[in-house]
Amino acid sequence: MKPVIDATHDPERLSWVESANATDADFPVQNLPFGRFRAAADGDWRLGVAIGDQVLDLREAGLVNHADMARLMQLPAAERQALRAALSDGLTRGSAREAAWRAALRPLSGIRVGLPCRIGDYTDFYVGVHHATAVGKLFRPDAPLLPNYKWVPIGYHGRASTVMASGHAFPRPCGQLKGPNDEAPRLAQTQRLDLELEVGIFVGRPNAPGRPIPIGEAEDHVFGLTLFNDWSARDVQAWEYQPLGPFLSKNFASTTSPWIVTLEALAPFRRAFARGAGEPQPLPYLDSAENRAHGAFDLQLEVWLQTARMRDAGQPGECISRSNFADAAYWTVAQLVTHHTVNGCALQPGDLFGSGTLSGPKPEQAGSLLELSEGGKRPITLANGEQRSFLLDGDTITLRGHAVRSGFRRIGFGDCSATVLPAAQGG
Amino acid sequence: MKPVIDATHDPERLSWVESANATDADFPVQNLPFGRFRAAADGDWRLGVAIGDQVLDLREAGLVNHADMARLMQLPAAERQALRAALSDGLTRGSAREAAWRAALRPLSGIRVGLPCRIGDYTDFYVGVHHATAVGKLFRPDAPLLPNYKWVPIGYHGRASTVMASGHAFPRPCGQLKGPNDEAPRLAQTQRLDLELEVGIFVGRPNAPGRPIPIGEAEDHVFGLTLFNDWSARDVQAWEYQPLGPFLSKNFASTTSPWIVTLEALAPFRRAFARGAGEPQPLPYLDSAENRAHGAFDLQLEVWLQTARMRDAGQPGECISRSNFADAAYWTVAQLVTHHTVNGCALQPGDLFGSGTLSGPKPEQAGSLLELSEGGKRPITLANGEQRSFLLDGDTITLRGHAVRSGFRRIGFGDCSATVLPAAQGG
Repeated sequence: MKPVIDATHDPERLSWVESANATDADFPVQNLPFGRFRAAADGDWRLGVAIGDQVLDLREAGLVNHADMARLMQLPAAERQALRAALSDGLTRGSAREAAWRAALRPLSGIRVGLPCRIGDYTDFYVGVHHATAVGKLFRPDAPLLPNYKWVPIGYHGRASTVMASGHAFPRPCGQLKGPNDEAPRLAQTQRLDLELEVGIFVGRPNAPGRPIPIGEAEDHVFGLTLFNDWSARDVQAWEYQPLGPFLSKNFASTTSPWIVTLEALAPFRRAFARGAGEPQPLPYLDSAENRAHGAFDLQLEVWLQTARMRDAGQPGECISRSNFADAAYWTVAQLVTHHTVNGCALQPGDLFGSGTLSGPKPEQAGSLLELSEGGKRPITLANGEQRSFLLDGDTITLRGHAVRSGFRRIGFGDCSATVLPAAQGG
Repeated sequence: MKPVIDATHDPERLSWVESANATDADFPVQNLPFGRFRAAADGDWRLGVAIGDQVLDLREAGLVNHADMARLMQLPAAERQALRAALSDGLTRGSAREAAWRAALRPLSGIRVGLPCRIGDYTDFYVGVHHATAVGKLFRPDAPLLPNYKWVPIGYHGRASTVMASGHAFPRPCGQLKGPNDEAPRLAQTQRLDLELEVGIFVGRPNAPGRPIPIGEAEDHVFGLTLFNDWSARDVQAWEYQPLGPFLSKNFASTTSPWIVTLEALAPFRRAFARGAGEPQPLPYLDSAENRAHGAFDLQLEVWLQTARMRDAGQPGECISRSNFADAAYWTVAQLVTHHTVNGCALQPGDLFGSGTLSGPKPEQAGSLLELSEGGKRPITLANGEQRSFLLDGDTITLRGHAVRSGFRRIGFGDCSATVLPAAQGG
């Protein structure tokens, strides 16, 4: 599927929602990301599109007659694009819809966002080759990158019920911990709570069971992207993960940004996908001219940490790492979809893939504290003098991301944010 | 939660549904397992209880006014038991309800069964210690049972969207295969397709996020058990599974028996749970006097193979292995629930756990062909002269299970059956 750049990407288009026209707005009229919200804590869920500092209620705008995101997500490409064009036209200055749609706007500051859809199955991939190498060194100094890494888009299933929308908090988890010199494990609060900077990939159109999705059709099954934090308890992980992979070290909480940025919105920010010299080429089922030409997404990613002390002092937090999806990923989104279904596995609307931790090639571009602190050995020092090897209670992690390209409007993802609470009583 | 034996378990109770009174019936009036069915391919889903060779439509019997199994599954224990008592009384000979409920019966041979509920998250455990040891030897001859096995109820997340109800068929999956002497992997049909004999555990009552379930309350969150086949492509698994665990080798299909046998029905078949001499005792959060007294389930399990040649000859298939849940499992159901939530992970009605492969202590009691054929080196020979190392196209695997105890009626699970089709075209 070739990314299409059309009138909806025209940087001259300005919105009658004035806040959408700021040059640093995450949600200009060129973006139009989809999410679910409630106007009140006990209100109904509604489908919306973020625009500037507002959300357009799609039902009140007369664009849908339901609140089921899965129905939107599985629209055929032509209908999806027609909806985008209608939204873009209606929200652009001079539209005849302005009067009617003004009544369907709600300020983002006054609503509660939820998960963008009911998440069916959640799969976490491991496409960050710099992350896999750095972490591999910590767990397996003799073989950081296993022989399958450059052939298989490594992934595993995660927990869907504990994926939450930005803005939540969760208690520090407990688990079995066992130090290298301990005779036996003990149950205790994790001492090595970490974040993982990932991109979330939401499946739109399903495939039938037993029918693999060829790489040429893969992106037609992707509705869009979010930012995703796959919180991890490293000490629990180290003890539990063999031989079947991470389990309780990951499934206590994951956080997604609430607005799904569609592949259509990201069309101008595609980049060629090429393997370095000496790297094995992908097997034929994972390779195509289209994938090589524009398989990657040029997305700038940031990790922000606000400690309790910063919050008390009214400080907004500090950026502790910057990375880029295209630089960090060894596999493309299309390759993940095709690999996931090559055995006939059925994807469904609302399934979520995590990309895996997206560390850049340089140590300071790491997408986890495990890497930034070299396995906990060298704490990072923050501007206010605080240090962190791993997260402390009261810490808030916010992932931010945006795409920029000369000649196009900046497309942002909004915040992916959550806060660590003290362990639940009895933990 | 102490298993309660009451009038619903009285072996003298006979049903006015005569087929339920046969001594080898899976569904006597003492069982009363729950499932979902359709009277026609395009009909609505309905909730039912299997009785003899019939199903009682719960809506037509006036017992529910909906078709949402999750609502039934999360009933408080007292309401769950009251529903069981009402079903037992109404289906017992002499009940005043007989006339009304006769009209709510459908023959099992005339309905289509579905999954008993929408499955939220599916977790596969690894409680079969004999299986873990035997398979560990094949994958890691130097360390068959890893150091964490006797402390951590090892588990990992699986794919919910591809769990199917008994009676389906699925194409042989493709995947990346790489022999030990191959320079590079290739995409091909699996040559080592296997079954796994497991028990399915359906979660009923949820826990709040961040709130672990103590072991004393664990069974109150379990609605009941099924038989479960976690089909596996061993050659795909061997190449893909490190470091994050099995993925495409498992997620193409899993099969559950369609009738959930409740813990109430299984009350007479509980057994003490004790660790052998020299085994480490469970950590305190996984230990209780109740769990030691009756944590295990005495369930007899069988694997039946019907090849295409047997089917063509009108032969019913051959039992290739027999095992027992209590003999095979290193951890109890209660321990799995408590471990899964010790980090605050939220369970939801309709979540499914697989027990892991339940191989008995003797080689011929193995719950997988990987073990029965010693890693493919020694094919098993069937009565008709056919041999199998792994499954061939056209093979049907049926898991069967039942509980027996002197002084009680036999409780059966019904068939858990599926058939291997040739690989999809292009595979």
